[in-house]
Amino acid sequence: MEVMRVLHMNKGNGETSYAKNSTAQSNIISLGRRVMDEALKKLMMSNSEISSIGIADLGCSSGPNSLLSISNIVDTIHNLCPDLDRPVPELRVSLNDLPSNDFNYICASLPEFYDRVNNNKEGLGFGRGGGESCFVSAVPGSFYGRLFPRRSLHFVHSSSSLHWLSQVPCREAEKEDRTITADLENMGKIYISKTSPKSAHKAYALQFQTDFLVFLRSRSEELVPGGRMVLSFLGRRSLDPTTEESCYQWELLAQALMSMAKEGIIEEEKIDAFNAPYYAASSEELKMVIEKEGSFSIDRLEISPIDWEGGSISEESYDLAIRSKPEALASGRRVSNTIRAVVEPMLEPTFGENVMDELFERYAKIVGEYFYVSSPRYAIVILSLVRTG
Amino acid sequence: MEVMRVLHMNKGNGETSYAKNSTAQSNIISLGRRVMDEALKKLMMSNSEISSIGIADLGCSSGPNSLLSISNIVDTIHNLCPDLDRPVPELRVSLNDLPSNDFNYICASLPEFYDRVNNNKEGLGFGRGGGESCFVSAVPGSFYGRLFPRRSLHFVHSSSSLHWLSQVPCREAEKEDRTITADLENMGKIYISKTSPKSAHKAYALQFQTDFLVFLRSRSEELVPGGRMVLSFLGRRSLDPTTEESCYQWELLAQALMSMAKEGIIEEEKIDAFNAPYYAASSEELKMVIEKEGSFSIDRLEISPIDWEGGSISEESYDLAIRSKPEALASGRRVSNTIRAVVEPMLEPTFGENVMDELFERYAKIVGEYFYVSSPRYAIVILSLVRTG
Repeated sequence: MEVMRVLHMNKGNGETSYAKNSTAQSNIISLGRRVMDEALKKLMMSNSEISSIGIADLGCSSGPNSLLSISNIVDTIHNLCPDLDRPVPELRVSLNDLPSNDFNYICASLPEFYDRVNNNKEGLGFGRGGGESCFVSAVPGSFYGRLFPRRSLHFVHSSSSLHWLSQVPCREAEKEDRTITADLENMGKIYISKTSPKSAHKAYALQFQTDFLVFLRSRSEELVPGGRMVLSFLGRRSLDPTTEESCYQWELLAQALMSMAKEGIIEEEKIDAFNAPYYAASSEELKMVIEKEGSFSIDRLEISPIDWEGGSISEESYDLAIRSKPEALASGRRVSNTIRAVVEPMLEPTFGENVMDELFERYAKIVGEYFYVSSPRYAIVILSLVRTG
Repeated sequence: MEVMRVLHMNKGNGETSYAKNSTAQSNIISLGRRVMDEALKKLMMSNSEISSIGIADLGCSSGPNSLLSISNIVDTIHNLCPDLDRPVPELRVSLNDLPSNDFNYICASLPEFYDRVNNNKEGLGFGRGGGESCFVSAVPGSFYGRLFPRRSLHFVHSSSSLHWLSQVPCREAEKEDRTITADLENMGKIYISKTSPKSAHKAYALQFQTDFLVFLRSRSEELVPGGRMVLSFLGRRSLDPTTEESCYQWELLAQALMSMAKEGIIEEEKIDAFNAPYYAASSEELKMVIEKEGSFSIDRLEISPIDWEGGSISEESYDLAIRSKPEALASGRRVSNTIRAVVEPMLEPTFGENVMDELFERYAKIVGEYFYVSSPRYAIVILSLVRTG
């Protein structure tokens, strides 16, 4: 599987599009807002003389969320400036995603974004003469590599993206006296599971660590000293990568796939061979890679539970969430739509376009049943880093 | 007509797409290459210490030509560096067009572009460690306004774009003691023609002058002092805007439209009301606006004839071009396809999608007949400017 080609959200504006099914991701952006605002404030306070700020949103995708993060950033900077008694700086905003992302959707919504930014900011030194204080560009490419000129950025944001790997992990195997890379032998599963071999766990962890190191190294070249990053993505709170919050969305999707294999609709071998280019990292792993890379210090590292629809939950209220059967099934449907908008492009090449409706129909039911007996959650990592030196 | 919305080339990769019908524009890029290379050489010689160069291609459109200009620029800079005994600088390349442009096509072809750039340049200080010497971004927006941060650019290129106006010109008229803007009353025509009222000539000239002034003023903010622009676009060599090379592509398109109106297929009033947001400027007009704006000096201003298929022609050979009838009709077909790929999106809202095949069928025949009795040409302006101060 070429991740560069298949890792993009469902395009356009239709019923199964990401644009129509991205409320959970929007909630995750909101969840990180407090930490982001805090980081922006620290950035602005320590760079009081700077007149032009470079900002990047990595993994911006396509839909209402693409401009939500940068709207938040622009609004926060604008609100901070009067408090800090300084003029609003020029903002150079870059929206990044893989080249297969639907950039046309973003480009077409930019005029409205500029109108809003300029209208809101009038009389506050913003947008004099038609938007000349905020310049937005699209930067296609993988963030697991260099994207921006050296020391051109002051602030990097990324939400719901860094849990995607640059490639499907593979394990090392021996063949005719040589060490080769081989499939994970992850039978009947599409991600780490309790039944996965230990070599698969190891391969996934290694791929994440390699990718995250390259990510940090690339950003360390691009950020100015004192520059900041706020990253939010799916992770886990336990060391064990097979707990519910680490992997159950994939576990249930594998169940839906296997039920179709049992009926001969798809081939079981294809499920064995398919592995999602995804990893939910623990805080220990993150700290280890950050320390190894060496050019960032951790300002904050929080891991918060959210329900599968992206709603934040407190530990106390959590176990009390009891749903009626119709409520549970409706939740299952929404979660299925959310996941479909994200993973359909990577499932299609293996399993075929024609089985997608049936697959996500089954997945919606399985998730709905699960919601009736459980209140499944993800763990969201919110990481605030400072470029040292 | 909202020019921002309808001024984009035919999208995608199909038979009527711009991507498949843009050889003429590609030839115009080639025609400007010598002047562009000369300007780049002067730029590099006068900025010998600079390590990062900002480059913008304005009106990049979508298709093979989108990356042709920047490929040429990158190649030229790369070839110059060894001669000038300096390392290849970091290149920050921005591709601009209106938000309705098909940016997805460009983004999807970027990985191949990076591969080519990095493979070609290996061992020459270019692309060390995976493309980190060339950073490409897409910048959606109108070049009749600010697009880039202050003093962020060193070189601006634009080909086959500046003959498009920011809006359809309108004339001033008196109504109930007030001066209002009104339609051009350009009966049976869609651009300036021998039968157009003088007020239409004036309105077109005024719109171009206003737009070009805003263009220069915006770029003068964005370019560093000593920065350069090479602009190529359709113009005219005579003061009279109704000569063949100034307007006959529109004249013949109006003929095709009128023939359909005569048969009741489209309404004649719609032709009267439609005016193309286009202008072929003379060198006198260009000089006048450049002088008025005041921050650019002219390094070169050339106007060259090319045939309607984009082939360059010398004055001597010109009148000798005699075609057989089938050759003339084949040329008519190609010219019709080229023009269709560009103007269909702006004609459709007025005349309807369903008449486009018929319209360009008739246009192909009319152009073919014309090719049999004449050798029509455009005049290409090639303008090389330096940001003074």
